[in-house]
Amino acid sequence: MELEKVLHMNKGAGETSYAMNSGVQNKIISVGKEATTKAIVKTLCSSWPVSMGIADLGCSSGPNVLTVVSEILDAVYATSRMLDRPAPELIVYLNDLFMNDFNNIFRSLPSFYRKQRQEKGTGFGSCFISAVPGSFYGRLFPSKSLHFVHSSSSLHWLSQVPTGLEDDKWGRVLNKGKIYISKSSPQCVVDAYSRQFQNDFSLFLDSRSQEMVAGGRMMLSLMGRESMDPTAPNSCYQWELLANALMSMVSEGLVEEEKVDSFDAPYYAPCLEELKLEVQKEGSFAVDGHEGYEVDWDGAMELQSGSVGMLSRGERVARTIRAVVESMLESHFGNHIMDELFRRYAKLVEDHLSKTRTKYINLVISLVKRG
Amino acid sequence: MELEKVLHMNKGAGETSYAMNSGVQNKIISVGKEATTKAIVKTLCSSWPVSMGIADLGCSSGPNVLTVVSEILDAVYATSRMLDRPAPELIVYLNDLFMNDFNNIFRSLPSFYRKQRQEKGTGFGSCFISAVPGSFYGRLFPSKSLHFVHSSSSLHWLSQVPTGLEDDKWGRVLNKGKIYISKSSPQCVVDAYSRQFQNDFSLFLDSRSQEMVAGGRMMLSLMGRESMDPTAPNSCYQWELLANALMSMVSEGLVEEEKVDSFDAPYYAPCLEELKLEVQKEGSFAVDGHEGYEVDWDGAMELQSGSVGMLSRGERVARTIRAVVESMLESHFGNHIMDELFRRYAKLVEDHLSKTRTKYINLVISLVKRG
Repeated sequence: MELEKVLHMNKGAGETSYAMNSGVQNKIISVGKEATTKAIVKTLCSSWPVSMGIADLGCSSGPNVLTVVSEILDAVYATSRMLDRPAPELIVYLNDLFMNDFNNIFRSLPSFYRKQRQEKGTGFGSCFISAVPGSFYGRLFPSKSLHFVHSSSSLHWLSQVPTGLEDDKWGRVLNKGKIYISKSSPQCVVDAYSRQFQNDFSLFLDSRSQEMVAGGRMMLSLMGRESMDPTAPNSCYQWELLANALMSMVSEGLVEEEKVDSFDAPYYAPCLEELKLEVQKEGSFAVDGHEGYEVDWDGAMELQSGSVGMLSRGERVARTIRAVVESMLESHFGNHIMDELFRRYAKLVEDHLSKTRTKYINLVISLVKRG
Repeated sequence: MELEKVLHMNKGAGETSYAMNSGVQNKIISVGKEATTKAIVKTLCSSWPVSMGIADLGCSSGPNVLTVVSEILDAVYATSRMLDRPAPELIVYLNDLFMNDFNNIFRSLPSFYRKQRQEKGTGFGSCFISAVPGSFYGRLFPSKSLHFVHSSSSLHWLSQVPTGLEDDKWGRVLNKGKIYISKSSPQCVVDAYSRQFQNDFSLFLDSRSQEMVAGGRMMLSLMGRESMDPTAPNSCYQWELLANALMSMVSEGLVEEEKVDSFDAPYYAPCLEELKLEVQKEGSFAVDGHEGYEVDWDGAMELQSGSVGMLSRGERVARTIRAVVESMLESHFGNHIMDELFRRYAKLVEDHLSKTRTKYINLVISLVKRG
């Protein structure tokens, strides 16, 4: 599976689109706002650039993209006013994989620019928004061109399905009937996932360290876990239920069992200690702050538009998950099972949440580039 | 008519798409290749940058975009080898209006990068391709960030329909039955068009002068005319025939006459003297070279794929024009008349070309930013 071709949020603005079902990510962005604002104030106070490079990595498409940009701009302008300095020329790079729907973002830019000019008045200076497609596990930007990097709900996606899951000499029995780390996973599966995350995150840090100026800051926010144990429910139970939905279809002959056995999600929810260890090992950044908090599986869905209000909690959760993972499930299982799969998934989620209030854990970590 | 919303090449890869019908523009790019190469060699010889900013303005989508980028990269790498210097870090900005199909370009980038790495071997350094949406009649890039600017088949598009064509106090009779400058156009129509072009081109030069470094170069290629007379056939006859096709539909009651009277193309084919005059007036650039040459109305259509070979010359020309102007005609006349309109247009073109070999004139002008 070439991730650059199959991993993207659902396009467009329909019922199953990411644009209409990104409430969880929106909730996460709004909680991360304070950390973003702090990081920007600190970046600008350490040295005032004439031209400020800002990147949003894994920006996706839909309304969240320009919400993030808008918050960053607000923070820059507030700092400028506070310190009585003219705002720097802002160069904003929006990044995601090659298959991301950038057209959707660009269509909103004219009204976004208009709104910024209205809100910020005559003080609104130059702001150049561009798109830089490609994987953030590798170089994306010129050397020393970035002052602030933001990434929300993206770094839990691995660059690839971990190696070591597919190569069993007796066939693929390593993670039978599962699609991510599970309570029943053998240790080698857990190890393969955590090794892949370490490699990816360290490559991420190394790439950014070349692109960022000394004193530049990163605000990274991603799914994680509080426990050291990667099989803790709040780090993997959403996948467990999705595997259960798939296996129920296997038992009725609707999906081949081999298909489920050969699918593994390119995802990993780390704990804070793993993040800090990689930052320390890579060496270019210092940790300036971190926090972890719980997010409901149905996130901020009460903020969504009317029609969604009629859905059960299970259905709402199923939609948020579908908007994100459908592209990769589709390429493996085929488009024809998607509606049925997510119908079953919604029921399992509904049932599960009626018994236990499993939540996501979101981690926020602020880093500063060493001099 | 808000041009930013309605002016874009036909999307996708179907029969009427720009991607499948951009042979004329491809021909123009290939003729402009020498001027591009020269400009890049001269830019690099005047001062060797660590990081080189390159912009393609009005890049559109389809295969031509990466052909241009590829030629620019070839020229940079050939110069590097010749002078025994490591290639600069390349920052390539692709620009077009907000509605341009950038997703289409991004989808080809992984294979483009792969091909470049193969061709250029271990010497292939950093190359960062990004998209910057917006009108080039205004600022798009940070100050002093560009070393080379390329624009092909774009600057003949005006920022808006000229003012002064719609405001006649007896109703819109100024350019009756016509959609561009025509032999029968009153002088005030010609003046309105040429004034709009002057304003736009001067704004273009002013914006670029702020974005380019001293010694940086521009290679601009656009539709134009050899004659001082803007009603010369090779600068406007393609529009004359399109107006005739529309008027034949008016005479059969298929299109309202008022609709034709109220439509004017946001297009202008200048002569070299007009270009030079604006460059001189704006003052930041010097003209380093220029040329004009003829292009057949069916351009390089013999290069197109098999199925097109079965079409008549009239049909081939109609397709190249349709791919470019359909979006703006559609927003004014409605989608329902497009097939019939271009069927009639193809016949008129076929008939015209059987009698006279009218050609397009393409102008190329190379500019260098003064120190």
